[in-house]
Parts: sequence; C-alpha cells; structure tokens
Amino acid sequence: MQTPLTIVKVGGAVVEDHEKLAQLLHSFCSIEGLKLLVHGGGRKATEVATSLGIRTCMIEGRRITNDDMLKVVTMVYGGLVNKQIVAELQARGINAIGLTGADMNIIKSHRRPVVNGIDYGFVGDIDRVNARSLDFLLGSGTVPVIAPLTHDAMGTLLNTNADTMAQSVAVALSESYSVRLVYCFEMAGVMLHPDCLDSVIRYIDTATFHQLKAEGKISGGMIPKIENALEAIRCGVKDVAITSFKDIEAREGTHIQI
Amino acid sequence: MQTPLTIVKVGGAVVEDHEKLAQLLHSFCSIEGLKLLVHGGGRKATEVATSLGIRTCMIEGRRITNDDMLKVVTMVYGGLVNKQIVAELQARGINAIGLTGADMNIIKSHRRPVVNGIDYGFVGDIDRVNARSLDFLLGSGTVPVIAPLTHDAMGTLLNTNADTMAQSVAVALSESYSVRLVYCFEMAGVMLHPDCLDSVIRYIDTATFHQLKAEGKISGGMIPKIENALEAIRCGVKDVAITSFKDIEAREGTHIQI
Repeated sequence: MQTPLTIVKVGGAVVEDHEKLAQLLHSFCSIEGLKLLVHGGGRKATEVATSLGIRTCMIEGRRITNDDMLKVVTMVYGGLVNKQIVAELQARGINAIGLTGADMNIIKSHRRPVVNGIDYGFVGDIDRVNARSLDFLLGSGTVPVIAPLTHDAMGTLLNTNADTMAQSVAVALSESYSVRLVYCFEMAGVMLHPDCLDSVIRYIDTATFHQLKAEGKISGGMIPKIENALEAIRCGVKDVAITSFKDIEAREGTHIQI
Repeated sequence: MQTPLTIVKVGGAVVEDHEKLAQLLHSFCSIEGLKLLVHGGGRKATEVATSLGIRTCMIEGRRITNDDMLKVVTMVYGGLVNKQIVAELQARGINAIGLTGADMNIIKSHRRPVVNGIDYGFVGDIDRVNARSLDFLLGSGTVPVIAPLTHDAMGTLLNTNADTMAQSVAVALSESYSVRLVYCFEMAGVMLHPDCLDSVIRYIDTATFHQLKAEGKISGGMIPKIENALEAIRCGVKDVAITSFKDIEAREGTHIQI
C-alpha cells in the first residue's frame, strides 16, 4: 500500500487575510501523515505593485507579468507570503520549508508563448516536477510550502498558476504516494448559487462539468480550477476536492470524480 | 579526516550589482566539493522601502527594523535576492535551495533586547544553528543559499546580520566538516588604505586586531566583520578569509589567525 500524502492548495484571498490563514494553518497542522502546502499569491502583489508605481494589467483574470511585475511577485509570493507561512508553521511545530520551483529544481517550466497576440510576459507553463527532490524532503518529515513561482532552468523565475502547480505536484507524487488533493478557498465548494450554501455540488465528473459549463452554471475562475481537478483525477491522484478553508476534510465540499 | 566544506558569505553591495554577482556566482560554482552561500541584503531594501513610503532609520550603520521594514526585508532578502540567486545557480547546474532561518528551522534567534535605549526592532540575535538539517541537505548534494533572516520559533521572522549568520553556520558545521569560511566583498581584503591595493593586511590575529583598532587603522563595519571572523577561528572553523569577490580563493586577501 502506498503512503498517504495530503496536498493542500490555498488561494490568495485566504492567504492575505490573517485570521483566515491562521484558521487554515490550524487545520493543516492537524492533518495526519505526510503533507504539502501550495499557496496562491492574491491581491497583495497588486497592492505592492501599485505602491511601487507599477501598473497591474490583467487579461481574462490573468496577470500580465512584465519585468517589474516579476520582481514584485518574486518578493511577495516567494518572500513575504511564503516565509510568513513557514515561520507560522514552525511556530506550530511543523518542520516547514519554503520553496519555489527553482529551489532544488522542483518545478521546471517554460515561458508561455504569445498566443492570439497576447503576451503574458514572465508566466510559466509547467514542463516537469522533480518528484525525487520532494520525496527526499517529505521522507525526512519536512513539510514543503510551495510558492506560485517556477523557473526555466536558464536563470529566470516565472509566475505560475498555483492551482496548476498543485495539480502537477499531486500527479507527479502519485507515482509514490496515495495522494489526496484539496483545493481550499473562500467558498464552500463549487456552488450553483454563490449565496446559497445548499447549492454546493457534491460530486463533479467530466460529463457534469461539461454540462454545467454549457448551461453557464459555472464560469470564470471556477472553470480552470475544475479542469485542474479533473486532470489530477485522470492522472492518478486518488482523491480531489474543492472546498472551504474551514472544511479542509471536504465534508461539505465538492468531490471530483473521473 | 573531515569532509571539506566551503562557506561563502557575499555582501549586499556585490549582490545588488548584476555583473559583480555573476562574477561571484561563477567563482562559487567552480569551488569543488560541498559548499554553502550566505548573502547580505544591501541597499535594495532601502530602495524598495523608499518607493513604498517607508522611512529607513539607521543607528550606527544598523537598520532599525520596524513592522513595515520587516515586511520589506522579508520580500527583498527572502524573495527577490535569494530566489534570483537560486535560479541563477540552477542555470549553472548547481542544485541550490534558498533558505531563511525559519526554513527547516535552520537558525533560531531571539529579538534583540533594547540596550541603552536603542530598540532595533525586529532584529535577531542567534541562539542556535540546526546543523542536522543543513547536513541533511549538503549530504544530498544540495547547495544551501541562506538569506539574512532568522526566526524566533514563535512565528516571527527577524532581520539578522549576514556576517554573524555565516559565522554561526560555519561554527555549527565545523563539528562535522572541515570548514573554510570566506567573507567576500568589494574590497581586496582588510586594507590600511582603501585606495592602495598594496595595503591589504595579509594576516590578522586577535592581538593585531586590537592594535589596529586602538590605532584607528580599522573602523566602521570592518570591526564587527573581523570580530565575526576571529570568533569563527576561535570556535573551530579551519580557515577564515576576508577577500574580494574576484578572489574567492583569497590569494591576495586577508587571512584570519587565532
């Protein structure tokens, strides 16, 4: 039997709210066995960029990462957010280590090519996850905390989607572990009506996903999130959930099925 | 015989100059055997702080680190500087990993108490180095790259002098390794006349140090640097040098003797 491993991805909106982050970290610490945290960045980068006089440009909800913005996300995601989480986990007795994809070469990516005239700048699309290095750390009882940055192995860091990083890491580690992947955010799960808790969709498979999408019942950032979750399940991750940061066990969240 | 380990500390002024840093990293990569890099922060933090409207306050050349400034140094030292060095070392085939003292709990410190009415703020004085974790990383061929931040194990990061960190790490690892500690900066070594290359003092021991200090021939930041170097030699580090980043082998730099 493979060793269980829980991978938690926590979104930027939770990360930048001190109380919510504390609640999430408390739940994270209570997870038994091996675990790993992937965190998003959130609006803090926009805030710092604005203070530095750097304009934030988004296309379809995605940040355009020019040279200046790459410096900001490296500072905010790789420094401020990542190291604060590591320090807080250490205070709770968890032997955390903060990583970007460049550290121990854990996630190599390439710069996204210009598509339909849109140049996202220093944004990375993942090539491969170095499961061996993560396995080495996990095996010693260390808890990796991964920031949404990868590298191209030619000296450049790349801003990378945290949902996709969590999925890629989960898939790569599924060769050695029985992986449970939990996407945590502010909502209770995938909901038909954001204001109505009863509207959480408990189970989503590929067919349901396409139907809900066609009917316009899910939209925006939820679409790539579910796509990542489905890809994880298809590629051997044992259990995938989309749930509230208050319900890390996903008792009331959405479970993804093949 | 103990395994040789080279620890290089590079100062902020070299780190913030792209060409100088490239030259230093090139030399660093050519060091055979196990190695570890400790880097300073430099004026980049001041620059970012100023852009963010945060005033930099120095007392006797030391930065007062209030809550806002702690965020800035966490971003700049732990994020921007550290991760750029890691990405550049990876590009050169070195399996680098970026660390603060919080990561794997490698360096625990306590907040410096108020002395003579001076409150340095979130500045850390080192309690202990976790040699076991560093040993674990070094043993796998990983090259630690340490930023000048430690933690108090209660959730707070602390701004910490990089020279002292390098010394503490070198001393802690001297129990298992034959450690060479190299302080690299912009000058050729400890010099009697900063403009005259011939004035490098080739050897300094405790007696020479006190004499030079009494005669006013060394002053400012050089004094704590030499104190750190002498403390390292006294505590079992095999070889300590203060030298130019262009002369990492310290062929023409200053060697510290007991």
